[in-house]
Amino acid sequence: MEINTYAQRFQKAWDWMAQEGISLVMMEDTETRRDQNIRWLTGHPGDALLFLSSDKNAVLVAWDVNLAKIYARNSPVIIVPYNDFDRKPLNALVVVSRTLGIPIGSKIEIPSVTPYPVFLDYVGELTDYDILCRNNSLGAEIRKMRSVKNDDEIAVIRKAAGFTNEIIDLLEKNVRSGKIKTEADAALFIQQEARKRNCEGTSFETLAAGPGRSFAIHAFPSSTGSPFGGQGLSILDFGLKYNGYCTDVTLTFARDLNPRQEKLVSLVEKAAKLALSMAYNGTRARDIAAAVDALFAKSKKQMPHGLGHGVGLQEHEYPVLRNSSDNDWVLEPGMIFTIEPGLYDPQLGGCRLENDVLVTSSGQEILTKARIIRL
Amino acid sequence: MEINTYAQRFQKAWDWMAQEGISLVMMEDTETRRDQNIRWLTGHPGDALLFLSSDKNAVLVAWDVNLAKIYARNSPVIIVPYNDFDRKPLNALVVVSRTLGIPIGSKIEIPSVTPYPVFLDYVGELTDYDILCRNNSLGAEIRKMRSVKNDDEIAVIRKAAGFTNEIIDLLEKNVRSGKIKTEADAALFIQQEARKRNCEGTSFETLAAGPGRSFAIHAFPSSTGSPFGGQGLSILDFGLKYNGYCTDVTLTFARDLNPRQEKLVSLVEKAAKLALSMAYNGTRARDIAAAVDALFAKSKKQMPHGLGHGVGLQEHEYPVLRNSSDNDWVLEPGMIFTIEPGLYDPQLGGCRLENDVLVTSSGQEILTKARIIRL
Repeated sequence: MEINTYAQRFQKAWDWMAQEGISLVMMEDTETRRDQNIRWLTGHPGDALLFLSSDKNAVLVAWDVNLAKIYARNSPVIIVPYNDFDRKPLNALVVVSRTLGIPIGSKIEIPSVTPYPVFLDYVGELTDYDILCRNNSLGAEIRKMRSVKNDDEIAVIRKAAGFTNEIIDLLEKNVRSGKIKTEADAALFIQQEARKRNCEGTSFETLAAGPGRSFAIHAFPSSTGSPFGGQGLSILDFGLKYNGYCTDVTLTFARDLNPRQEKLVSLVEKAAKLALSMAYNGTRARDIAAAVDALFAKSKKQMPHGLGHGVGLQEHEYPVLRNSSDNDWVLEPGMIFTIEPGLYDPQLGGCRLENDVLVTSSGQEILTKARIIRL
Repeated sequence: MEINTYAQRFQKAWDWMAQEGISLVMMEDTETRRDQNIRWLTGHPGDALLFLSSDKNAVLVAWDVNLAKIYARNSPVIIVPYNDFDRKPLNALVVVSRTLGIPIGSKIEIPSVTPYPVFLDYVGELTDYDILCRNNSLGAEIRKMRSVKNDDEIAVIRKAAGFTNEIIDLLEKNVRSGKIKTEADAALFIQQEARKRNCEGTSFETLAAGPGRSFAIHAFPSSTGSPFGGQGLSILDFGLKYNGYCTDVTLTFARDLNPRQEKLVSLVEKAAKLALSMAYNGTRARDIAAAVDALFAKSKKQMPHGLGHGVGLQEHEYPVLRNSSDNDWVLEPGMIFTIEPGLYDPQLGGCRLENDVLVTSSGQEILTKARIIRL
């Protein structure tokens, strides 16, 4: 992203801080607490702390300074090595708040995911400040901002989706020709093709489940040497990560189905169609998920997972397409999310159909071309 | 693992609960809060809550019940679908504590990683109980137990290490012959060979960094189409996951080094040798890391990461081999950990040498055969 994009994003963060009267915010992206907000704000892909002060200073405490200098070069941050603080976020916070001259008595926000015992350590150490650890945090605010993509982000995801579609076509061809015989063949093929297209990698470990394993929502292990694409239902769930941005699709391969399997597949296809017919600007996400649940319920089926989720720097982000009482997401232009109805049965196997959809002011764009492939 | 192994593990957990006077413990393994303790206790590989009550009931609330029935079949748990609780851990806790008849006023432990705002929700909802969220938790206790492997675990890791060594030899052969030309070639080759050997996959995304990128501790992206094994230093950091257990090794490929690069490599080799010469039963882990830091300091070099870490169900677990004041780990027979000295320089590139070591009562066993490979 360009200097201007980062500058605008920081400005939004600083505006929020001013409005909330917060002097310093700490963000954390470490092994056990991942946070793509730091990448969104700075370009730096991971293992770092980020400090924003209300007087518009920004300090990126990076595990790998050499990497940070490259990736965060367009963002308005000062880069400092994590090693300077004995690799302890609390030490970094103490030193940074002192160095930036954060006034005594003012509000300092730490990440909302901070474990309670760690929160106690912070409060115990920073007795001169009012330590905030709330769900209503800058982090949450930024995650909400991230649910609506700007034109540059849409361009990147559109490109990632184009690559995804090329690979979907190749997968169909190679499963039909017998070149892809096993789950591992499919998973490795995707890796290979992703690298050919200069992707950072896959968005997550490809889930390839042949007829013997497709009953699981997320097959475990993610792929094996078992046959793929044989009689019954095979599921292939994968995504590409390109310039930081993810796609996420699921294909189902169907061969020689019995009538009950046919029923399952046609229900899933119907659900996908129904959901897409509703996925427009202004629709409540929850209503779409509820409509799909109702459709399945008419056939006495139940989907054991949500209908979809945003995609972006993370493979799972806002908005949430789930039929739960506390889901108040409403679709807006610029939102990109999956729609992924699925049904699973220990006897019949599973079927899931997942595509990535962009809501526009004038309609919708189905970015990916995942489908049920009948062999 | 066998029924007896799981029974013993649960017994240890119940003993600890009795000693601490805790009536119910909740563990959580979900997307944002991973916890391999649930796999260690039950065999179930992920996405679940586990409840243990002091009267020796155990309830596994699984996202995927079909999968749980297979993987947790040898453990003494009742399996319940997560969907029954609207997929909310708090709901599950409320219902389970009621169903198991946990006495009012007694202690209920929730995971120590529970975010502070979530902790407040729990306390607000379960007003009849004393909610504990402490670092000194059953989870921490089990992570400590996991640092010492039993014979079955050692056998599995030894097998994983054997596969790792086969792949190291093949990598050397294929880089020498030119069959592996790029970082992506190396990463894909490892994936392929891992699958051939029926591994669950790799322990983490393989880091393949050719001479242009090896200066980074953890290259980003993890691999690209850039040349691998050319003039200078190339790093290859990978691990296999076999029956749940991880290996973790790093090779460095060196070609036509200049004198300063030679110095870097020989320092890293010296450090590895020094660390191994100290890695025996009874040694303080911190002392080993301090000795390596001192060795590097003599040459005015600094290692920007810890010296090593345990490997097991996770690629990073206890013990910790780090030179920090609060590290009081002492090596014991059955511990398996990495020793991975490394040095990195934006001009010269990086060099890391990482092997997995088992401490035994009579000595030590270097399980893996990673090395500096001079081309």
